[in-house]
Amino acid sequence: MLSIDRVYVRTMTDIPESHPRYRSLMTREMLVRGVKDGIASMQGLIAQGRGEAFDYLLGEKTTESAMRAEKAAVALMMLAKRPVISVNGNAAALSAAELCELSRELNAPLEVNLFHRTEDRVARIVSLLRSKGCQIVYGDRPDRLIPGISHERARATSAGIYGADVVLVPLEDGDRCEALVKMGKKAIAIDLNPLSRTARAATITIVDNIVRAVPNMVALAKEMKGMPPSELGAIAEKFNNDMALAQALDEMMKNVMKARRNV
Amino acid sequence: MLSIDRVYVRTMTDIPESHPRYRSLMTREMLVRGVKDGIASMQGLIAQGRGEAFDYLLGEKTTESAMRAEKAAVALMMLAKRPVISVNGNAAALSAAELCELSRELNAPLEVNLFHRTEDRVARIVSLLRSKGCQIVYGDRPDRLIPGISHERARATSAGIYGADVVLVPLEDGDRCEALVKMGKKAIAIDLNPLSRTARAATITIVDNIVRAVPNMVALAKEMKGMPPSELGAIAEKFNNDMALAQALDEMMKNVMKARRNV
Repeated sequence: MLSIDRVYVRTMTDIPESHPRYRSLMTREMLVRGVKDGIASMQGLIAQGRGEAFDYLLGEKTTESAMRAEKAAVALMMLAKRPVISVNGNAAALSAAELCELSRELNAPLEVNLFHRTEDRVARIVSLLRSKGCQIVYGDRPDRLIPGISHERARATSAGIYGADVVLVPLEDGDRCEALVKMGKKAIAIDLNPLSRTARAATITIVDNIVRAVPNMVALAKEMKGMPPSELGAIAEKFNNDMALAQALDEMMKNVMKARRNV
Repeated sequence: MLSIDRVYVRTMTDIPESHPRYRSLMTREMLVRGVKDGIASMQGLIAQGRGEAFDYLLGEKTTESAMRAEKAAVALMMLAKRPVISVNGNAAALSAAELCELSRELNAPLEVNLFHRTEDRVARIVSLLRSKGCQIVYGDRPDRLIPGISHERARATSAGIYGADVVLVPLEDGDRCEALVKMGKKAIAIDLNPLSRTARAATITIVDNIVRAVPNMVALAKEMKGMPPSELGAIAEKFNNDMALAQALDEMMKNVMKARRNV
């Protein structure tokens, strides 16, 4: 599912495929490579580590509750007039090809938006996404500002995030997710920390690892193609974000308690 | 307590001192600076992120249980014939001056030991530690191998870690902590993840952030100076690592449950 260039990665690490945490370790190496390639930032590596810890507590799997969130998210994006997918450095380093596939399935253009914005990094990510077959990638010529956040992070494109009605914001920071919701947009977050401001501010929070969530969403988008709007609406309506966050916390507590018994 | 060069850090970030997470954010910036200076590694940034997540669950404070572990650790090091403090890239980037102070208080030399070892990084860390006033810093001329781990990570110094009876291993990886214990040494870990292999393998695990734990240990070493060996022995004996790990997990569960009620 991960688009790993194994030969390249192998030169950096000695992780055998049989290693029980192979996938987690490979994800980490992909991100280190992303920093070396000027795609991800060093702060992004720290954010990845935080996510890893929460993913570990979650059991490193897509829970049933997360799968329901992914389904509701796909329904919401299929119903949207102008859905857009926001892409930051970590999302690009970990899931460029999969995000492009999701973009095609949902007719949702991508927009590059960085917390630690540099024009060089924006250009590299735009070019990476185009190399994966994405037709429309916004972000290198922002023309508007999202109100309520600092200038560089506020930069958005009127044809992209600024004019969108539903925005998928994988691995977003809390401020920006709140600002998008305040603008009246529906925000779908992918965030492994159910206690984060992003997780609480979003319309739908997918508490799952991006490397599992995006391929799941691609599969769901294919399955749900042709579903009548009334059915999509029912799926989106039924979803309760507070309940999903509580379920993610319950899952983590259950896993911690199980581990505690083995201490 | 943190030795932050504020002017330098300010040029990198816009974090006001009034920010509720100022200290956590500053710690992060110190580590990013450590990578830029060739002290810490990119993998170290991911490890920092994992630690941050567990610290967040712990309430970002030294718990009573952690303080007891810190006291037992200081007692064990005061009783040791040859105590040594292992220093990796993150420890050096976050706590160089404080580790040197602890080294002086406990007559415990430092030895640089890196998971992702390069001679250049070893040399930079040795020189950083010397600049903070450390007299004896081992690690740049290892002459022995710790059995049971891969060659580069096994490199140790006979006058330092290899010949030590008690080793403080802040932010260690699980393999190496286990290997030290298998050699018959007592290992004291500082690890925010109570479920990690390091935390389970160590003789004493301090579930606390290094930026709080090391200054606490310096203060304890000063307080406990002149304490009779019998009293130090009683403090070390009384400590139960399994119980300390369970207490850390309980603290985390309590905080998660509190947060869950607010969801």
